[in-house]
Amino acid sequence: MPDYRKFFSDDVPSFLRSPVREIFRKVDLSSIYSFAGGYPSAETFPLEKMPALSETVVRKYGAKSLQYGATQGVPELREAIAARYGVPVANVQITTSSQQGIDICGRIFLNPGDIVLTTSPTYLGAIQSFKSYRAEILSGELPEGRKAKFFYVIPDFCNPSGETMSLAEREALVERARREDFIIVEDSPYRELRYSGEPVPTIYSLAPERTLHLGSFSKVFAPGLRLGWILGPEEILEQIFVCKQALDLCPPVFDQYLAAEFLSSGELDRNLEASVVLYRRKRDLLLSLLDKYMPEGVTWTHPEGGLFLFVTLPEGVDAVEMFDEALSKGVAYVAGPLFFTDGSHRNTMRLNFSFMDEARMEPGIELLSQIIKSAIWKNSH
Amino acid sequence: MPDYRKFFSDDVPSFLRSPVREIFRKVDLSSIYSFAGGYPSAETFPLEKMPALSETVVRKYGAKSLQYGATQGVPELREAIAARYGVPVANVQITTSSQQGIDICGRIFLNPGDIVLTTSPTYLGAIQSFKSYRAEILSGELPEGRKAKFFYVIPDFCNPSGETMSLAEREALVERARREDFIIVEDSPYRELRYSGEPVPTIYSLAPERTLHLGSFSKVFAPGLRLGWILGPEEILEQIFVCKQALDLCPPVFDQYLAAEFLSSGELDRNLEASVVLYRRKRDLLLSLLDKYMPEGVTWTHPEGGLFLFVTLPEGVDAVEMFDEALSKGVAYVAGPLFFTDGSHRNTMRLNFSFMDEARMEPGIELLSQIIKSAIWKNSH
Repeated sequence: MPDYRKFFSDDVPSFLRSPVREIFRKVDLSSIYSFAGGYPSAETFPLEKMPALSETVVRKYGAKSLQYGATQGVPELREAIAARYGVPVANVQITTSSQQGIDICGRIFLNPGDIVLTTSPTYLGAIQSFKSYRAEILSGELPEGRKAKFFYVIPDFCNPSGETMSLAEREALVERARREDFIIVEDSPYRELRYSGEPVPTIYSLAPERTLHLGSFSKVFAPGLRLGWILGPEEILEQIFVCKQALDLCPPVFDQYLAAEFLSSGELDRNLEASVVLYRRKRDLLLSLLDKYMPEGVTWTHPEGGLFLFVTLPEGVDAVEMFDEALSKGVAYVAGPLFFTDGSHRNTMRLNFSFMDEARMEPGIELLSQIIKSAIWKNSH
Repeated sequence: MPDYRKFFSDDVPSFLRSPVREIFRKVDLSSIYSFAGGYPSAETFPLEKMPALSETVVRKYGAKSLQYGATQGVPELREAIAARYGVPVANVQITTSSQQGIDICGRIFLNPGDIVLTTSPTYLGAIQSFKSYRAEILSGELPEGRKAKFFYVIPDFCNPSGETMSLAEREALVERARREDFIIVEDSPYRELRYSGEPVPTIYSLAPERTLHLGSFSKVFAPGLRLGWILGPEEILEQIFVCKQALDLCPPVFDQYLAAEFLSSGELDRNLEASVVLYRRKRDLLLSLLDKYMPEGVTWTHPEGGLFLFVTLPEGVDAVEMFDEALSKGVAYVAGPLFFTDGSHRNTMRLNFSFMDEARMEPGIELLSQIIKSAIWKNSH
């Protein structure tokens, strides 16, 4: 057997495993209280509608629904998305998942050693992707004399923090992008899942000339379709078009027609409305359970939308060390340091409230709070 | 507006547009006689079966058909493919199209300047992908003192030549791979479309320890699903798994269940049988039309399967120059030089026989032969 390592590219050691996905490889999620993943609730999927939706696609679009499609995405879906945002079709590229949108940003922008700016904490899958291009990922100010290629940000209900950037913060970021001359990659998978408060304008609407806005069907239709989109300047989309040819020729076509039908028939909005009601209830339930069970010294964010909130334990309590014990007792979360590029903030954790059944949340949080209490006790003795 | 070029990575100038896809952007294929694309016939798509297939998936697999799935692919599809090839499930990775399989090979193996060996001519989409990693693409012997990372080859009904490697040629390639120590990437999208002759063992079966075998549902189910697979050594698949997390998390899940059902119910084999009958007839028709219309001095390959044959015009006749005239008169092909990494062989062209209706083939070939005759006449005067 050959030693395969010698064949691998210099990027390969920089590909990181997702510790979240590693947990899921080993543990049957349904057997534990899992606040770990970022899965939408299966209750939000239009499962029963899929056969009729397929029927409509077959009847309406015929064989082209099963043929190769345009690299930019099928016109019907691009037009539906363009209309939803009020932008020209030329500014819309369909992607095979919004994770692919992130990877494409790495592929077309990053050389080894390039700087990507981001918030801290930020989405693990984006850190993984940019690190695989051997980029340096920083938050805060740039080192003297250095420039950044882009700033990656989830302004609405950030994964993992659950926090939303104010209009002033968005304007300040745009101002900085123009001054320091970098692109903004606005990752926006949760934007339409707002349960309270008022929508804030997208960064894309504030600076369309230097923003790539990444959207996703995963949280408003179904993640099993692997469909997302990029809005951006035509000059960049033209380059993304050429890149995407080499990546996978075109996004899944049958799925695109399913999504186009789901969106343009109004089903998506009806489905979204029901999802918002469900998730609002789940968020409120989780917040009230944290109030009820968490010991003094534990704090958490109060998200206005999305799928996550972020918990901070007292200084010195280690959510990373605590994890194996929690898992063995039947409750899972994601330790905070995974979302910080420097692995700091060991006293934090991300909790998801979209996936778990409401009835299981209380015993899950009760169990987690016991484990946290015992860790706090150990830490102070 | 910023000058976007300064943001682009050093790979970006190496991304090539597909001239084939550029033609399709400008010309309505149905308005001309097109021997140009590599599209399967819409007649082979199980269009009418899609609603019932969706119904089965929904009933049998429920919400998990719309949820995020495993990065390696859903177990049911991996098992069905493993069983078809008689290999362990651990050697099967599902990809979001076999083009993605090609891109993954570039991503995990290639540094700028690395050598990829291939046949000449070879698949344009593979040249595009490997060049985007700034690899050097060569055929024949390696330069003194250099090593290759892998040999990319389509042994069955090569795109564009239509030719099939004999067992002796495959064994010689394996022998060379072991001697010179490189991987073989066996791209096999057409293997099951055999119309005459006897199947030759896959290279993967001859050298499973150093071959990645790329398969595709595009020609045996539908390209609109964007599903393929990689068979290979576990140690390499483990690295592909980590890479694929960053690329798109997982292949399309609903599509995978559609494919798993289509395959395990026997529908795929019935569909394949009918496709083989149709394509055999089309291949025979094209061969007989070339016999009937082509002037002396023009030769072509006689493929035992696949979607293409390759035409050689008399020396000095330029299929590249001839293209615009042909297109303006209503017939399209792909000029041969696109498939040669050095752009040579200007007197060759690829003809596809899968896509066009049978009734349109005769007028199409008659027209093409007139254009060729006139080019030959001009060339000799």
